Amino acid sequence: MQPVRVAFDVEGGDRGADILIQGLMEAIARSQVPLTVHVCGDENVIAEIFEKLGVFPDTRVIVIEHCPHKLSQRDIPSRAWQTRANSSIVRCIALQQEGKVDVSLSAGDTRFLMASSIFILGRAEGVARPALAAFLPTAHKRPVLLLDVGANLNCRAEHLAVFGKIGQEYAGVYLGLPNPTVGLLNIGQEASKGTRAIREAGQMLAESCVGYIGYIEGGDVLSGKADVVVCDGFAGNILLKAFESLYGLAMSLMKENRDIITVIQDKIAVLNPENYGAVPLIGINGLVFKAHGASSAAVIANALQMAIQTAGRIIQTSPQTVQY
Amino acid sequence: MQPVRVAFDVEGGDRGADILIQGLMEAIARSQVPLTVHVCGDENVIAEIFEKLGVFPDTRVIVIEHCPHKLSQRDIPSRAWQTRANSSIVRCIALQQEGKVDVSLSAGDTRFLMASSIFILGRAEGVARPALAAFLPTAHKRPVLLLDVGANLNCRAEHLAVFGKIGQEYAGVYLGLPNPTVGLLNIGQEASKGTRAIREAGQMLAESCVGYIGYIEGGDVLSGKADVVVCDGFAGNILLKAFESLYGLAMSLMKENRDIITVIQDKIAVLNPENYGAVPLIGINGLVFKAHGASSAAVIANALQMAIQTAGRIIQTSPQTVQY
Repeated sequence: MQPVRVAFDVEGGDRGADILIQGLMEAIARSQVPLTVHVCGDENVIAEIFEKLGVFPDTRVIVIEHCPHKLSQRDIPSRAWQTRANSSIVRCIALQQEGKVDVSLSAGDTRFLMASSIFILGRAEGVARPALAAFLPTAHKRPVLLLDVGANLNCRAEHLAVFGKIGQEYAGVYLGLPNPTVGLLNIGQEASKGTRAIREAGQMLAESCVGYIGYIEGGDVLSGKADVVVCDGFAGNILLKAFESLYGLAMSLMKENRDIITVIQDKIAVLNPENYGAVPLIGINGLVFKAHGASSAAVIANALQMAIQTAGRIIQTSPQTVQY
Repeated sequence: MQPVRVAFDVEGGDRGADILIQGLMEAIARSQVPLTVHVCGDENVIAEIFEKLGVFPDTRVIVIEHCPHKLSQRDIPSRAWQTRANSSIVRCIALQQEGKVDVSLSAGDTRFLMASSIFILGRAEGVARPALAAFLPTAHKRPVLLLDVGANLNCRAEHLAVFGKIGQEYAGVYLGLPNPTVGLLNIGQEASKGTRAIREAGQMLAESCVGYIGYIEGGDVLSGKADVVVCDGFAGNILLKAFESLYGLAMSLMKENRDIITVIQDKIAVLNPENYGAVPLIGINGLVFKAHGASSAAVIANALQMAIQTAGRIIQTSPQTVQY
């Protein structure tokens, strides 16, 4: 079995490279498939962390990619892929473009990750705006793919319509479904509801997307009514974070009922941000995942696992065209 | 003790006047304060329903206001207050303007309710766009007021800033707090995050609103970090409906654990749309509540109770200026 090849940015997180490398070690220990992980960051920092952890990295599994450039808030996202070519985010994406890895994971700034992906890997055909997409649990067994969850705050009708199509393709591969259903997030069911962009996107999807089932209200995202729910990145981000907060809220409300907590932990485990990990950037010619900046080592381990599993699945499905 | 005087629209719901009048009877039976309810609708329909229910309405409590006009989707909301002056929604608001009632409740179309309120009662000083505001439970004992939840889909910075101020005033009266804290819903904490309208609204609130605490992310709405959370009506509506759906979702996830359901019903009762009732329209010169179109009789009873309690509280607080 060929190893899954991963590019991993260890500079992007808010909590330092230590945490990210701890997460990596956990993911490697847990992986059921062979791996090669290209660790992108400052080689001295990385070497020190491995020393502190008392680990000699197996060079067949871990390849250190030295990235001396640092990205800062002053850098312009659309130019960083050229001006900061040796920064950790840009290097991850470049490794994909060079065919050296199958998938990238970063906990860094979404804007740099998005821009590097667009300019180095290129957009998928017909996609002006790639999107971040998150799987959420539903009342049924099957999860729902929500997109965009934060990459595009102001969306025109055509952007939303394209999110429907790329979300449907991604959910199809990920869930192994022929025609996942697609809903458009809106404030009501009636055709007259919502902003003009949403109403127009609804018409476009009705004409072009087999599987489009119409408007979905906020209360039906987790009901499993649609396999894919389309919205702009503002609404999606708010909704995603609201859902992620429920786990902690449930724990806090139930803190006097220890036995109930166990059941809840089991039932809504998938809403626990710890188990959640990363979201894919879709609509680009490559497989790029974004983890929360504040991720713990456990979250990073789950994020890597998600990236690895998805890469494994897509390599199996269409070895020639890894195009998501 | 003076009765609280209510105008009640029995034509607006999706489920017919029967359900609305059943809800009314429940609310009257349950009320701890004396009431006079002006029931606005078709007098023949209303009389028939009372007959079917086997009830002779006490004319000291129930006053039937015959409203022969019907509102339809063809009517223009901003004109209906003149062209359909004898429709149930417009009559409710007119009764308030005439000083005959303290509060109105309708389960009808938000656009007609909003426009009639604006044109008949007038906007509060400095308010271009009144908003719908909903109280939600938090991890603490104190609820959070979320606005707008559906009246204004596209908001400019100044609209959002005003929502902060009127929300703060309303929460202050309702919760009996001197200076409730105000947060602005956004996709991150950093000053550079969000749309231009949100960033500008943040600056306006920082300059003008004592109690403004900055951006609130989707995961912190229910944490009790702010007493008032400001957003546009699209994000607010999506979020409100998502939260309302959690009760049913929890019930469905836990359906095999009957004893846990009892605890959940108790702990998250306030998220149950049945207990929730109605949301106030704030920023107008009067007290107007909107119930869900699909409300059951039990929900309507709770909605009336909420309207009555708020009216009672505001009459007590400032008998001269019922201005919300």
